[in-house]
Amino acid sequence: MAPPSEGGADALLPDLPKGPLQAYRSRASFCWKELALFLEGEDVLRLKKTIFSTLENDPLFAHSHGEELCLEKCRELSFLRCQRLLELSFLSMEDMVASPLLVQTLIACLGMYDWSLGLKFLLHMLTFGSAIYSSGSERHLKYLPKIFNMEIFGCFAVTELSHGSNAKAVRTTAHYDPTTEEFIIHTPDFEAAKFWVGNMGKTATHAVVFAQLYTPGGQCHGLHSFVVQIRDPKTLLPMPGVMVGDMGKKLGLNGVDNGFAMFHKVRIPRQDLLNRTGDVTPEGTYVTPFKDDKQRFGASLGTLSFGRVTIVGMSIVNLKLAVSIALRFSATRCQFGPTDGEEVPVLEYQMQQWRLLPYLAAIYALDHFSKSLFLDVAELQQGLAGADHGARQAELGREIHALASAGKPLASWTAQRGIQECREACGGHGYLAVNRLGDLRNDNDPNCTYEGDNNVLLQQTSSYLLSLLARHIQGGARVESPLRTVDFLEAYPDILGRRFTCPSVDSCLDSAVPLAAYEWLVCYLLRESHQKLTQEKRSGSNDFEARNNSQVYYCRPLALAFLELTVVRRFHEYTHQPHVPPGLRAVLGRLSALYALWSLSQHTALLYQGGYFSGERAGKMIQNAILDLCSKLKDDAVALVDVIAPPDFVLDSPIGRADGELYKNLWTAVLLESKVLERPSWWAEFSIRKPRMGSLKSKL
Amino acid sequence: MAPPSEGGADALLPDLPKGPLQAYRSRASFCWKELALFLEGEDVLRLKKTIFSTLENDPLFAHSHGEELCLEKCRELSFLRCQRLLELSFLSMEDMVASPLLVQTLIACLGMYDWSLGLKFLLHMLTFGSAIYSSGSERHLKYLPKIFNMEIFGCFAVTELSHGSNAKAVRTTAHYDPTTEEFIIHTPDFEAAKFWVGNMGKTATHAVVFAQLYTPGGQCHGLHSFVVQIRDPKTLLPMPGVMVGDMGKKLGLNGVDNGFAMFHKVRIPRQDLLNRTGDVTPEGTYVTPFKDDKQRFGASLGTLSFGRVTIVGMSIVNLKLAVSIALRFSATRCQFGPTDGEEVPVLEYQMQQWRLLPYLAAIYALDHFSKSLFLDVAELQQGLAGADHGARQAELGREIHALASAGKPLASWTAQRGIQECREACGGHGYLAVNRLGDLRNDNDPNCTYEGDNNVLLQQTSSYLLSLLARHIQGGARVESPLRTVDFLEAYPDILGRRFTCPSVDSCLDSAVPLAAYEWLVCYLLRESHQKLTQEKRSGSNDFEARNNSQVYYCRPLALAFLELTVVRRFHEYTHQPHVPPGLRAVLGRLSALYALWSLSQHTALLYQGGYFSGERAGKMIQNAILDLCSKLKDDAVALVDVIAPPDFVLDSPIGRADGELYKNLWTAVLLESKVLERPSWWAEFSIRKPRMGSLKSKL
Repeated sequence: MAPPSEGGADALLPDLPKGPLQAYRSRASFCWKELALFLEGEDVLRLKKTIFSTLENDPLFAHSHGEELCLEKCRELSFLRCQRLLELSFLSMEDMVASPLLVQTLIACLGMYDWSLGLKFLLHMLTFGSAIYSSGSERHLKYLPKIFNMEIFGCFAVTELSHGSNAKAVRTTAHYDPTTEEFIIHTPDFEAAKFWVGNMGKTATHAVVFAQLYTPGGQCHGLHSFVVQIRDPKTLLPMPGVMVGDMGKKLGLNGVDNGFAMFHKVRIPRQDLLNRTGDVTPEGTYVTPFKDDKQRFGASLGTLSFGRVTIVGMSIVNLKLAVSIALRFSATRCQFGPTDGEEVPVLEYQMQQWRLLPYLAAIYALDHFSKSLFLDVAELQQGLAGADHGARQAELGREIHALASAGKPLASWTAQRGIQECREACGGHGYLAVNRLGDLRNDNDPNCTYEGDNNVLLQQTSSYLLSLLARHIQGGARVESPLRTVDFLEAYPDILGRRFTCPSVDSCLDSAVPLAAYEWLVCYLLRESHQKLTQEKRSGSNDFEARNNSQVYYCRPLALAFLELTVVRRFHEYTHQPHVPPGLRAVLGRLSALYALWSLSQHTALLYQGGYFSGERAGKMIQNAILDLCSKLKDDAVALVDVIAPPDFVLDSPIGRADGELYKNLWTAVLLESKVLERPSWWAEFSIRKPRMGSLKSKL
Repeated sequence: MAPPSEGGADALLPDLPKGPLQAYRSRASFCWKELALFLEGEDVLRLKKTIFSTLENDPLFAHSHGEELCLEKCRELSFLRCQRLLELSFLSMEDMVASPLLVQTLIACLGMYDWSLGLKFLLHMLTFGSAIYSSGSERHLKYLPKIFNMEIFGCFAVTELSHGSNAKAVRTTAHYDPTTEEFIIHTPDFEAAKFWVGNMGKTATHAVVFAQLYTPGGQCHGLHSFVVQIRDPKTLLPMPGVMVGDMGKKLGLNGVDNGFAMFHKVRIPRQDLLNRTGDVTPEGTYVTPFKDDKQRFGASLGTLSFGRVTIVGMSIVNLKLAVSIALRFSATRCQFGPTDGEEVPVLEYQMQQWRLLPYLAAIYALDHFSKSLFLDVAELQQGLAGADHGARQAELGREIHALASAGKPLASWTAQRGIQECREACGGHGYLAVNRLGDLRNDNDPNCTYEGDNNVLLQQTSSYLLSLLARHIQGGARVESPLRTVDFLEAYPDILGRRFTCPSVDSCLDSAVPLAAYEWLVCYLLRESHQKLTQEKRSGSNDFEARNNSQVYYCRPLALAFLELTVVRRFHEYTHQPHVPPGLRAVLGRLSALYALWSLSQHTALLYQGGYFSGERAGKMIQNAILDLCSKLKDDAVALVDVIAPPDFVLDSPIGRADGELYKNLWTAVLLESKVLERPSWWAEFSIRKPRMGSLKSKL
């Protein structure tokens, strides 16, 4: 990519308002516009600008300053905005196919504005739409234009009241009746009610329902998906036999109507079975191209990966917003100082830097990972669409599944912890709802749970690594993968023999040092996990027990360390490539080193335990390097936020506005709240009715 | 304390309902009623029963099932309930003075029901009331009956829009005018508006206002507090010259009306200066019994400690509720199993045990610490009230201040992380508002911030320890304190020479092992912090810089480790005392060991770095001991929850009810939500108005 013209940068990235943040901006070591262009490219920046300015100029997207919205209103607004997105059609089908990064950008932009809207739109268009497209066949294509026109509105119904993580065990049934050529969808009892389904609560007319498929004679063929109409699009009233409702208030994302449904012998045409992986003939015979259930399940990994990779991106969006707010606050909030009269911005404190700057670095490293993984998934899906069933394609599917299954936990947890740190780092002002950190935390929280509980998902990644090791040990197979994330394991015994060597703190300031440490760490945890599993089995545990007893200190940190290594490696390579503009090399190198060292420092105990570190110096060197990098990045922090923060309208946080007029903005926002200066409606309860102390005590 | 009679236990602690939790209850190693009686005593249990049953039987305290409450309504309810508490008068003045633990119990019970109510009541009765009592003199006693009768309603106004942590720098002024014998309270500009003041938003009629006191001639005597009337009790309208308003929605605690106020030359009588530490004569001369500002400030440490110790208790209440919900859920939620047909409770998974049981142990250890520290503070305050100005009293004040200043961070962070873990451990169901984990997280969050930001507060504790060390090094002073929490430091050089020795995992299963490790850790961090500060100063830093650059990896972990040691020591001693009933020794010992080892394991890196641990075995032994204790406590977990959980009405979480009928309770609760099965009011927007894809695209 050639460096874009200055003119282009200025048109796409307008100057930021002058104000108190100027002091830090003028000390930045680089030009924020140059970095934005380098990271995003003109196409992405143009799309972002279009989306953000369109939302800002449309009253339907106006923020409800001070007005309290009830649940019904939140959901109405999300729905109306969804409709409007359709009319606005920011991306054509051709754009989407041609550039997956634009799809990711669209999702991120909507999420920056409000994840309820982003998610509602995503669930309908992408989750529901692509479930039909990728699990169905030609006979289901008829649904697609209806989806895109919102003639119908969709949801994706897997989980039930009593089954979440163990989705394969859901209990909704689909019995085939050859006499009418229909499936009978049935919920045996309320514990099998579909539960937690986004869009199902109030809006969905159609659901992709997962149910156990039975053919006549009573044979069960496992989980399949069916298109089931649940409401009449003309009235939004439920279809006969369907009990469908809204789950009520959640901790966040209250613009999305999560719902439940019970089916009482609801009949649907045979054709509404999504039959990519298995079908039933009119006479009632089950046919499938796959040998067994396991293989059939494996074929759907790509779709699962897409959901998880999307959540990686969603989490990073939340962290970007929170860190932008907290760092702009920290650069303008002054408290204490060397003398009584002189107060300094809290960003000048080493403690505040250490609390926030590693999360800023994490954003840059994880964002790069998220984009690159999104492109990997797009490649995988294009291969699947092209019916590429080769061995490489299967291997790619497994590798991406492993990356996505640990990437979602890492990103969602990093965001959750980072947002909490930002909330606390903004003190009381971070606790005021109008500053948005609460919504960010609440809206990010389900990222730790949906599309798979984080701790459960990590098992997918460790199992992948352990299976590679087993193949290597048993059959001598080369350890390699299409994206080369595991290739280093080929040098496994050699790496385990390495020890930390670093002559000085200065030489620690590059991500090459933590990268080497991470390679050792993953090899160590892989060996330890393998030995632990073997030992468990030797002492009589069955597979289930052996796996369960090897998670806490073995497989779980293995999966996380492997993913961190991959994130660190990809960002290290990206920031060290020759075509990085000279003016950006220093700052990108520091971000890469800070993220890597900070992540690594969470494993210091293991590095010592396994003997990679020894002596006091190793641990202290890492600590000193982290603090040194924080101090070097401190003056770049505001400019680094300018690169990732959306415009003020979208960021929507008085203490995080680009002009840095912290107190003016906050004061104005508080005065805009409803009835702020009015006495309470219940004033007479205080003034007239006077309680008598202990008057009800005798009743106790 | 003699073991109470069985009859007493049964009357105070009714049997729990039968149901799915019975399986675990029947496997418990101890009798939960015996443990409850041992820990709490009959008086506390009786008070709890009275409070809980009174709330449950009064419709004013009924929960708003499914009904959405607007901000105004939340605040009205809190206020009305406050009034009712006054009428109910659970504790007489005599009870409170005679038994501080009953005061703590009352606060905890109200908080278990709803912290908005607890806090509103506390702010008025205790914070406002005791500020007047302890900072004022005889002439202010007239306010007390008015407070207890709610003739007036109070708030405590220190922080301003631009000053929180650095409270001493607040900018509100109080100029004395001898011609009228009045103070003129004035806010120089909106950045000096009082901000974040609980109860000020809608209800308070009077505020204790902190302002810089100026005498004629313009001399400033520093911060003093004044009673300022801000609203007319007859109308709840603001007094002339006072602009007072409500700050709007917060992340939680929305039943408390936090507010702001600006004073425009508001005149108050000279007598309304709270003059315990300094006064102004009618002619305008400043008089004080203290030599300097610093000494005057020191005299107020006791009051600060009370607030912080109260927050320790508040945090533990939140963690108790969250862990009760998550453990009852985990004992009844089945997912996966050794075979396809058979699913096991998620509590059977080592991972789930490791996520939750350490927090259960933390509750028991921290609760004991909280009670004992509350008694210490009560002793201190009685000494102060008795005008005991001896050296021991001063030392006691400093020690308690150090304990409270790190106790609040440790308890609030443990609760915050624990609640988040509970939320995630309950999967999607934990994300449903009705299950209460969101409210607990949101209501606990400000505990990390108010009464001092956690990270800032920790400096008070490390400074205390460093000053003891300095006195010891410089003058050879004995290291000792009234509560003996620092006495072990006398053996400082000896302790630093110790190394981890533990023959087997079994011998690690007692808290004596982590206790010894903690002593080493605190000594190590104390030496390191001292050296770091010295080195910073040697290389040219001034005091301000030296202190700031020694926090992250030195003073901060020092303060936390010292406090953890104190918690571990106190609980170790409590659980190992001879009069622990035989049937409770095993379970209490395990809780003590688990909390101690789990806390310690967060410092493993330092234990290796400093050489206390060496070799692979030490780290693994701690890990194995933690997992072993989790597995041993697993069958006791439900009974341990029964000891700490309030009745179902107060716990108010369908997935956490004592009968363990997880799905029935959740299903019923969801169906009770408002309009759950109705179509949305805006259905026609979907059914009639059909968007045309891209129809607005040209406008972009």
